[in-house]
Amino acid sequence: MVVDISLGQAKLDWARNHMPIHKALARRFEGARPFAGLTVAVSSHLEAKTGVLIETLAKAGGQVVFTASVAATAQHDVAAALNTQPGIEGFIATEADAATQSSLRDKVIARQPNLVIDDGAEIALQLVRRPSEIPNGFIGVCEQTTSGVQRLRALDRLGQLKFPVLAVNDSYMKREFDNVHGTGESVLTNLLLVTNRLLAGRCLVVAGFGYCGEGIAQRAKAWGARVSVTEVDPRKAVRAHVQGFDVVPMREAVSDADFILTATGMPDVLRREHFLEMADGAVLGNVGHFSNEINLDDLRDLAIDQRDVRPGIREYKLHNGHCINVVADAELVNLASPVAMGHPIEIMDITMAMLFLSALYMVEHRQSIRAAVHAVPEEVDHQVAEIELSALGVVIDGLTAKQRGYSSS
Amino acid sequence: MVVDISLGQAKLDWARNHMPIHKALARRFEGARPFAGLTVAVSSHLEAKTGVLIETLAKAGGQVVFTASVAATAQHDVAAALNTQPGIEGFIATEADAATQSSLRDKVIARQPNLVIDDGAEIALQLVRRPSEIPNGFIGVCEQTTSGVQRLRALDRLGQLKFPVLAVNDSYMKREFDNVHGTGESVLTNLLLVTNRLLAGRCLVVAGFGYCGEGIAQRAKAWGARVSVTEVDPRKAVRAHVQGFDVVPMREAVSDADFILTATGMPDVLRREHFLEMADGAVLGNVGHFSNEINLDDLRDLAIDQRDVRPGIREYKLHNGHCINVVADAELVNLASPVAMGHPIEIMDITMAMLFLSALYMVEHRQSIRAAVHAVPEEVDHQVAEIELSALGVVIDGLTAKQRGYSSS
Amino acid sequence: MVVDISLGQAKLDWARNHMPIHKALARRFEGARPFAGLTVAVSSHLEAKTGVLIETLAKAGGQVVFTASVAATAQHDVAAALNTQPGIEGFIATEADAATQSSLRDKVIARQPNLVIDDGAEIALQLVRRPSEIPNGFIGVCEQTTSGVQRLRALDRLGQLKFPVLAVNDSYMKREFDNVHGTGESVLTNLLLVTNRLLAGRCLVVAGFGYCGEGIAQRAKAWGARVSVTEVDPRKAVRAHVQGFDVVPMREAVSDADFILTATGMPDVLRREHFLEMADGAVLGNVGHFSNEINLDDLRDLAIDQRDVRPGIREYKLHNGHCINVVADAELVNLASPVAMGHPIEIMDITMAMLFLSALYMVEHRQSIRAAVHAVPEEVDHQVAEIELSALGVVIDGLTAKQRGYSSS
Amino acid sequence: MVVDISLGQAKLDWARNHMPIHKALARRFEGARPFAGLTVAVSSHLEAKTGVLIETLAKAGGQVVFTASVAATAQHDVAAALNTQPGIEGFIATEADAATQSSLRDKVIARQPNLVIDDGAEIALQLVRRPSEIPNGFIGVCEQTTSGVQRLRALDRLGQLKFPVLAVNDSYMKREFDNVHGTGESVLTNLLLVTNRLLAGRCLVVAGFGYCGEGIAQRAKAWGARVSVTEVDPRKAVRAHVQGFDVVPMREAVSDADFILTATGMPDVLRREHFLEMADGAVLGNVGHFSNEINLDDLRDLAIDQRDVRPGIREYKLHNGHCINVVADAELVNLASPVAMGHPIEIMDITMAMLFLSALYMVEHRQSIRAAVHAVPEEVDHQVAEIELSALGVVIDGLTAKQRGYSSS
Repeated sequence: MVVDISLGQAKLDWARNHMPIHKALARRFEGARPFAGLTVAVSSHLEAKTGVLIETLAKAGGQVVFTASVAATAQHDVAAALNTQPGIEGFIATEADAATQSSLRDKVIARQPNLVIDDGAEIALQLVRRPSEIPNGFIGVCEQTTSGVQRLRALDRLGQLKFPVLAVNDSYMKREFDNVHGTGESVLTNLLLVTNRLLAGRCLVVAGFGYCGEGIAQRAKAWGARVSVTEVDPRKAVRAHVQGFDVVPMREAVSDADFILTATGMPDVLRREHFLEMADGAVLGNVGHFSNEINLDDLRDLAIDQRDVRPGIREYKLHNGHCINVVADAELVNLASPVAMGHPIEIMDITMAMLFLSALYMVEHRQSIRAAVHAVPEEVDHQVAEIELSALGVVIDGLTAKQRGYSSS
Repeated sequence: MVVDISLGQAKLDWARNHMPIHKALARRFEGARPFAGLTVAVSSHLEAKTGVLIETLAKAGGQVVFTASVAATAQHDVAAALNTQPGIEGFIATEADAATQSSLRDKVIARQPNLVIDDGAEIALQLVRRPSEIPNGFIGVCEQTTSGVQRLRALDRLGQLKFPVLAVNDSYMKREFDNVHGTGESVLTNLLLVTNRLLAGRCLVVAGFGYCGEGIAQRAKAWGARVSVTEVDPRKAVRAHVQGFDVVPMREAVSDADFILTATGMPDVLRREHFLEMADGAVLGNVGHFSNEINLDDLRDLAIDQRDVRPGIREYKLHNGHCINVVADAELVNLASPVAMGHPIEIMDITMAMLFLSALYMVEHRQSIRAAVHAVPEEVDHQVAEIELSALGVVIDGLTAKQRGYSSS
Repeated sequence: MVVDISLGQAKLDWARNHMPIHKALARRFEGARPFAGLTVAVSSHLEAKTGVLIETLAKAGGQVVFTASVAATAQHDVAAALNTQPGIEGFIATEADAATQSSLRDKVIARQPNLVIDDGAEIALQLVRRPSEIPNGFIGVCEQTTSGVQRLRALDRLGQLKFPVLAVNDSYMKREFDNVHGTGESVLTNLLLVTNRLLAGRCLVVAGFGYCGEGIAQRAKAWGARVSVTEVDPRKAVRAHVQGFDVVPMREAVSDADFILTATGMPDVLRREHFLEMADGAVLGNVGHFSNEINLDDLRDLAIDQRDVRPGIREYKLHNGHCINVVADAELVNLASPVAMGHPIEIMDITMAMLFLSALYMVEHRQSIRAAVHAVPEEVDHQVAEIELSALGVVIDGLTAKQRGYSSS
Repeated sequence: MVVDISLGQAKLDWARNHMPIHKALARRFEGARPFAGLTVAVSSHLEAKTGVLIETLAKAGGQVVFTASVAATAQHDVAAALNTQPGIEGFIATEADAATQSSLRDKVIARQPNLVIDDGAEIALQLVRRPSEIPNGFIGVCEQTTSGVQRLRALDRLGQLKFPVLAVNDSYMKREFDNVHGTGESVLTNLLLVTNRLLAGRCLVVAGFGYCGEGIAQRAKAWGARVSVTEVDPRKAVRAHVQGFDVVPMREAVSDADFILTATGMPDVLRREHFLEMADGAVLGNVGHFSNEINLDDLRDLAIDQRDVRPGIREYKLHNGHCINVVADAELVNLASPVAMGHPIEIMDITMAMLFLSALYMVEHRQSIRAAVHAVPEEVDHQVAEIELSALGVVIDGLTAKQRGYSSS
């Protein structure tokens, strides 16, 4: 594999130029170096925006050790460019197998990180399973995905969590921007370019009307798609209905769908019973952290034939003559498609800043924060929002003395 | 004043026909009569949809005593029609002065209600101020507005709350529908019909990007308005910005505004300094519970002339030659305009059902629920959502056994 | 009938204040008085905005004689206020019967107008039927509706048109604004306020995807309605489909419709076969010039009972137990509903200016313009657009010399 | 250059599967072979969808000779796959210089085509310049772009057109779908993926509010962009304004633009005076047929430095320190970006069908059609619309006898 470091560097340049919050964070903390003496592990989709977070942590004094949370989405040129920078060391693999991934996480853990910035709780889970490996001086984990937070909360309920976790995913500034706008835009642009299909007038099914699902559904509708939504929560089902979406059970939804996207955080959302009902030519994509939202085992089992029909699209032919097309082997559409560049840069500027300042919050409160999954304190949200407004040149009103009195009395 | 009871009855008929959740509640509880032996006070905007809630409480066994939370929006024909029904007694006034309103609330309290369904916490505050009047066997208050919940939470923080409150306003099924869709639609339809103005291409300023403000802003933009947003919370400011709204300080926003709507829950949002900067002909309307979001004292003080320029619109002429038009004396645009019929019926079906089932929850848990402001339990949300889906004929998926296992482990 | 002239005057004041193009026209032509010596007949929906056109014609020297094109929508206070002004004389009736309307048109024709500004070609048709009554010195007709232009084109094809007609309805500046935005906004605001119903999530059927129908459908969808479209033109059907609308035959569309609006320019769009399939409670409204888009004879024939269920809504009960509600007896929803104020003022400023300048064009070219239906010359469109931009304070680019050369060579 | 024919074949397979109109055309005409004995030249963006048109012409009996209208967008694998099919012969170059392109067109003309399906009037202009080369038995040209039709109309006005042209671009079924939806979707998806930038909240300038520009502007706004529009036609300026867009002169628009897209059909839309005012980091893309909408000579002249900053993006650094980024060297964003696949397949199915049936119309009417630019007859539009509806499974209403009578009398 030939890796072009200068291309990785150019990607980092471009990203950095569109991440004004990180520019401000670097300026603010390169003197004080609040992470000095600490090792910070970063496990995330390894591309340019993650790279800028890693750089900024290093500029703020941290010794950063990184790996890729998902092998398929890792960009080797970016990793190589990062590895040339002081205070940064990373390990990524060209092989996507679970054993390789796990061994890389072991290498990260072997560096005895004080903090983990995690994705899908991949490293955190390894530390839960093998508590003896929890580093000395371990401060905690900042987790950025719905799936990861769900896993860690479950462990917390079972009393198995031995370190604090900040649920960065659940914070206002993450989920209202990254999940709604970042996923919304990038999933649709990738889907359309990979397939060269039209959205206007087509039937799109969105499984799950959470932040990601709603962001996708609204954008698709705004461009003329006929969007159906599947849900298991009756409140969100009413929410989707009143926005004009057809809310239907999945078996009904798939029968005339051109596109089906899963965004639930649940396994098996598309499974044998659904594949059998799908329209010929249906295109399937996954938006959740784990590819098991689409049960590919079921699909392979049903298929009488399969082939790569186009870069990034595998076609499965069923015995009923229908072909089902899966984008990027059910890995995240916006990260794993052949044209993928992940979330838009400006969105990741916000998300990564939430991770940075959440990690900093943990450092500053390491004495008092107990082993549990915590919400990110509102003050972190406010800090990021204020830096962002300042970068955008947006000025807002303050409360008058009278209003402050009113709101507190 | 001549009141046409048959017209009130026709309004109730029409509302009832479009409130399927209440139809289902009536069917479900008219046998068991869970409110039997209890007096339920209802203080709310007194029009047909509130009437159907009152009827349904009576059918479920309650002795209902009602008054109008805001005199200006009370419909006397509906009140009269309600007063002919068994188990229902109500008091409303034709005079809008504070003393009259307060005396009517006294009459309601004199009926010794066990439960209060409140609006703006008007009755609850009276009970806080004069705790000796808290009825024997008092169970608690269900509050439906942002303003009311804010007031009661402040009292709770001060330790002055002597009875339990359910913050129905904050529940998912209230604020995501009533505030977003109900307010969103009805404020704009009323504003446009009262003024006969065009929305497309006009400048609309929305003060406050909470649920109500966002609902208005998005609908106005979707019809071609150029919408500016003012906020004091940096997170919501970023939220509005990323949706494409201009986020600006109010003094800047008003200078070319055709319409300015306040939806903040704060007093003095429009005040002297803003009136002086407003474009000639600006139309001002309030969406918050209290009319003091627009400081009419300041405006009257600045005016060199004023007149009713059109039903529902008062024009204030300033010394700079600019005229400022205020809709409905800064009472709620969608309730107090001359063509007003309040929120759409189907929305109030949801909101009123949340009040009904929250009240029922209080009855059922009266032994255990302590004096404080409480969130409405999610099970109440789920009940209303499920009845609504059933009424709409919408069927949704359930979790598979495997998924249930996944989500709990 | 008591008529409040001062209310009529206030309505004219309000309208005039929001019609900057007419303000500019009055300023431009009150000196030159290009209509001096000419009698101009105006037959239109008689309310404040029409009043401002009438005033402006009079200020530009014309002797104006007016009547109401539709009795149900005529505002007597506005008519009375107009009749106090010099150079203006008008006739409207309180009785809506055809004979009365026709006799009023006779009175208008008896004034020997040189120009007719027509609506639905009501006066023009009278002149076609009785050519002996065509006044001496007759210059021609400016027609503002789709229905009227269709009628006159049919007569033209049959060789029965004895005078020139400008099809103002078909001009860019009329149909892209009046039909799309004016009808779009006002039909929905009236429909929602008359019914107090919610739009979000409801099923709305729009018959006809012309300028009016598309304007309604897009706005309804933007507010969360589930919109179906019926069409007879396959090109417009594809157009609607690709925007995400369900395109279906009417019999299928009505079965679960909450609202059905006709905007086709055709009679009998809703008829016996459709009434029998309609969902219980369906609300029907007409947007076309003629009420016969909804065949009320069929509906009355089918009904076993009928009553006014609400101001502006008549309910017909069928033998299948379903009730069908008709708004404003199938007259235009946005003009005839009890809360109606017609199109938004700013839109009528454009439309009325097209009528004014089209009439002026006819005067200036009276020697050369032959008896036929003509498109409005583009220069008239451009004039109105330029005055409007100037009133809005919008500045646009011009072509460079190089670009001008390119576009002409 | 290594060309993978099997990849070209796979691209054709995928396209064919999503072009149901062409499937229907092939079925309908493979027996009758109406193009038998005729040579049809096709000059177009040479990728899979064009390939399916070429195939279908060949199946319908034509001898097809093709070339690429723009070298930069030509896909060599598709060309190679086409060249293996009977009745098809094509020439494309790897060099993009004008001389090479012209010589390929000469080769096409040397095949003595009877019909030309043209793009940007490239071949037609060659025939106008060198009329001696007009083949014997030449029937005419079908032109698919705004730019090409403009050029040919100018020649027609000058009396220099010696053969008939059908302005396919101007037909309803082309411009309402290809220009609005095809360009709208694909320009934005390409722009966003090439830059990895966010659209929500960003400033996008669209030059030209024609079909393409409006399609882009509406979609960008729907995803949260703040969109400004520049226009030279006052009517379209009002149209954009009333949809809520900021209409401004270009010099003003560029000063805070994140993205600037040109869609005017004019040269020099962005030129020296604009480059000097642009915000740092502005991204420029062209949507018109000719890259000269952005004057790259001016930009190169102003630049003190330039480099490829990212695949598909060239950065020009000005002496004021600002960097300006140009996508795809100002070639069409949606065709020339590194991830480009051109218009969505379903859209090109409609456009290509318009070209096919327009060509067929010319064959059938070759005796009567005179040398001039003609509109495509409505019957061709209707045919394509009907086949499309049938492919979509959409059924529409017909007129009743009564309605037919009404509309014709």
